[in-house]
Amino acid sequence: MTLTLASIKERSLLGLYDLSKNEIESILDRAAYWEAQPTKLTPVLKESFIANMFFENSTRTRFSFEMAEKRLGAQVLNFAAAASSMEKGESIYDTVRTLESMGIDAGVIRLKPIGVLPQLAAKLNIPLINAGDGNNEHPTQALLDLYTMRKQFGSLQGLHVAIIGDIQHSRVARSNLWALQKFGAKVSFCAPETMQAPELAAHASYISMEEALQADVVMMLRVQLERHTNRLMKFADDYREQYGLTVERAGQMKKHAIIMHPAPVNRNVEIDDELVECESSRIFPQMSNGVPVRMAVLERALK
Amino acid sequence: MTLTLASIKERSLLGLYDLSKNEIESILDRAAYWEAQPTKLTPVLKESFIANMFFENSTRTRFSFEMAEKRLGAQVLNFAAAASSMEKGESIYDTVRTLESMGIDAGVIRLKPIGVLPQLAAKLNIPLINAGDGNNEHPTQALLDLYTMRKQFGSLQGLHVAIIGDIQHSRVARSNLWALQKFGAKVSFCAPETMQAPELAAHASYISMEEALQADVVMMLRVQLERHTNRLMKFADDYREQYGLTVERAGQMKKHAIIMHPAPVNRNVEIDDELVECESSRIFPQMSNGVPVRMAVLERALK
Amino acid sequence: MTLTLASIKERSLLGLYDLSKNEIESILDRAAYWEAQPTKLTPVLKESFIANMFFENSTRTRFSFEMAEKRLGAQVLNFAAAASSMEKGESIYDTVRTLESMGIDAGVIRLKPIGVLPQLAAKLNIPLINAGDGNNEHPTQALLDLYTMRKQFGSLQGLHVAIIGDIQHSRVARSNLWALQKFGAKVSFCAPETMQAPELAAHASYISMEEALQADVVMMLRVQLERHTNRLMKFADDYREQYGLTVERAGQMKKHAIIMHPAPVNRNVEIDDELVECESSRIFPQMSNGVPVRMAVLERALK
Repeated sequence: MTLTLASIKERSLLGLYDLSKNEIESILDRAAYWEAQPTKLTPVLKESFIANMFFENSTRTRFSFEMAEKRLGAQVLNFAAAASSMEKGESIYDTVRTLESMGIDAGVIRLKPIGVLPQLAAKLNIPLINAGDGNNEHPTQALLDLYTMRKQFGSLQGLHVAIIGDIQHSRVARSNLWALQKFGAKVSFCAPETMQAPELAAHASYISMEEALQADVVMMLRVQLERHTNRLMKFADDYREQYGLTVERAGQMKKHAIIMHPAPVNRNVEIDDELVECESSRIFPQMSNGVPVRMAVLERALK
Repeated sequence: MTLTLASIKERSLLGLYDLSKNEIESILDRAAYWEAQPTKLTPVLKESFIANMFFENSTRTRFSFEMAEKRLGAQVLNFAAAASSMEKGESIYDTVRTLESMGIDAGVIRLKPIGVLPQLAAKLNIPLINAGDGNNEHPTQALLDLYTMRKQFGSLQGLHVAIIGDIQHSRVARSNLWALQKFGAKVSFCAPETMQAPELAAHASYISMEEALQADVVMMLRVQLERHTNRLMKFADDYREQYGLTVERAGQMKKHAIIMHPAPVNRNVEIDDELVECESSRIFPQMSNGVPVRMAVLERALK
Repeated sequence: MTLTLASIKERSLLGLYDLSKNEIESILDRAAYWEAQPTKLTPVLKESFIANMFFENSTRTRFSFEMAEKRLGAQVLNFAAAASSMEKGESIYDTVRTLESMGIDAGVIRLKPIGVLPQLAAKLNIPLINAGDGNNEHPTQALLDLYTMRKQFGSLQGLHVAIIGDIQHSRVARSNLWALQKFGAKVSFCAPETMQAPELAAHASYISMEEALQADVVMMLRVQLERHTNRLMKFADDYREQYGLTVERAGQMKKHAIIMHPAPVNRNVEIDDELVECESSRIFPQMSNGVPVRMAVLERALK
């Protein structure tokens, strides 16, 4: 069977903004199927060659995709820009096109420069899966977040999700915003003025930390400390005092509410050490959920 | 079956200088067989452990070998010097010998220092495949180049191949020269004086850019811009003006002629952006061809 | 079958200090079984996902574990701190816990900070295998050393093993000391005062170089030249003169005695170039033995 180019594009996952509620739901359902499997290895993608192309470093996301790929029996090839000829000035396009020429069936890609991903997807003839695209979208992270919330609350409809932190630079916040709204959840942001994203103002309102603590889901974002190397300790302390989820603040949360974080966590900056694995935290379960969610996304791209 | 040491050496691929026309032809024929396979995975090397030992960085070549290895079902282990104890002063020999001791069946090796590869091959008891040897040879690149030319022209006999660029530092030029001559092709070089290789003068003559454009194959080499960090932009501009394959110059090529480049390409230095994927360019097809060619080389080493 | 937490802990290999003689013996016996296998691939761990987590660089050890894992058919995922988010300040615990959350079945771990490994093992629910723990223990190295000695001498009982070099910083020396004593072997140390380990004085006596040369096993340790960057050449020369195994000194060794070294070797510092592969050297055989020994350790952790 020869796939039309259009059907290949449909198998890509570039973001959640353009994905229908139905499509998202079917991914989450399939993830539930994979999570329920009694065995780890189901080699349905044995003949598929997948390249993990990380033009930006990431332990967690690369590893999670690799687990998902290997659980499906796929052939996995890793590429990281740091160990590559990118230093020789090779463009991202040339690299991805090269790997495509060599016969990969799908590419998982993480990259920094904004606007490059849709251009790549338009030029290539294989499905691409966004594993982090500048500060635009990070769809598989939001999918695993939705999966985690749905598992907790049964439905996303009517849920109040407060996202706290550096909204401006967060692809996680954007992907969650676009997806959650499709399901009738209410998204609020909480951020210092310097970390707010003006272009999102029409879609979510900014609330105070006190109000945020009343949400059903308190989602903390990672503070990018590397942006604040000047007077780092002072910055971290101030941030914790004003926007950190401290033990004291967590005490004000609703009884049924959960804590989420895309990780890696800055312990005692955006969230207190004691809370990372507390009863209402879903931080490590989020990571567990990432694997079946990515299995569903990969299967959709390749089967 | 115990292999004699001599037969192991014969399974190595150190260069094309010493390989017979017949041997080269049988590799190209077998590559055609692999290219024609309808499925990607043919696990004939399932019990073979192959180490990719890159003492010099390379995205493309390592990835291409890994694709080839995995298409044959081999067990692949990657080693890159940057992530290794080479920093602790360990010699290349000790590393390769170590990996051999651990039971690898063949090694794909890329390294910088000239003259080390034949010494290694003499001391080791496993086949070695040269994936780039200083400025000496890069046999699998030349094999895929020959494969690409043969596919285009049916035969290599009588073909005129012009290689343009930094001949002096090019292992690609050398491997192509040795191999093409065995098939009755004519190789010419075109290079500024500072990039000519005096020791090759007896084997290929230097021609002007105008003459080079009349060849059947116009093979551009990568300019190693990292050798010219001083006044880089000026150097790149001058190079393009004198030796770059510009759109204008490409217009002077014969109608049936093709453009080749071992990649990665410096767009708008040795070749204009618009030409990289133009109709007569074989640059990405070269990369596609690299995989079945390397499958043939690996199979020859191990089966 | 659900494993109790206690049985998981028993499957870990954190060190040899706490391992019984019987347990060690059964690992060595099983290694002999694996070494004797006619085929390389025995996929008994096909459904097991193993993460090699190297928070400290190591070519040799990572590669040896990977060979062992792949010979058992396991699914292997590599993680190296240098290519990771450790730079973003992520703690080792968070990383290892993350990989556990993603579903790995066992972790091979190498790390520098002392005292972290037992804490990790206490908090995690998967077996951990120590691949180098600060200057505390390196159990698989000592196991392969014991395996090599047992293979040579039949029994370890009554053997005299002299360990020469930087005892203070050597996890290899410690693991060998604890294990060899359980088997009735006598361990002696030979080191300049600055490299002695006072806390081990009760367990092994320091002897002169002349006495050390009379041992059954002369085990040289790697000098960590990176600790002596000041006047490096002078240091290396002096070290060789006083504690190096020179060709001359090797001539004083007993006829049946063997030379060992955990590698990588500083040729002509702690051991002369000519001795590395001489007849009484077991340096490369040690590396060969490492693979079946690690297969036995991994199988014990996972089967």
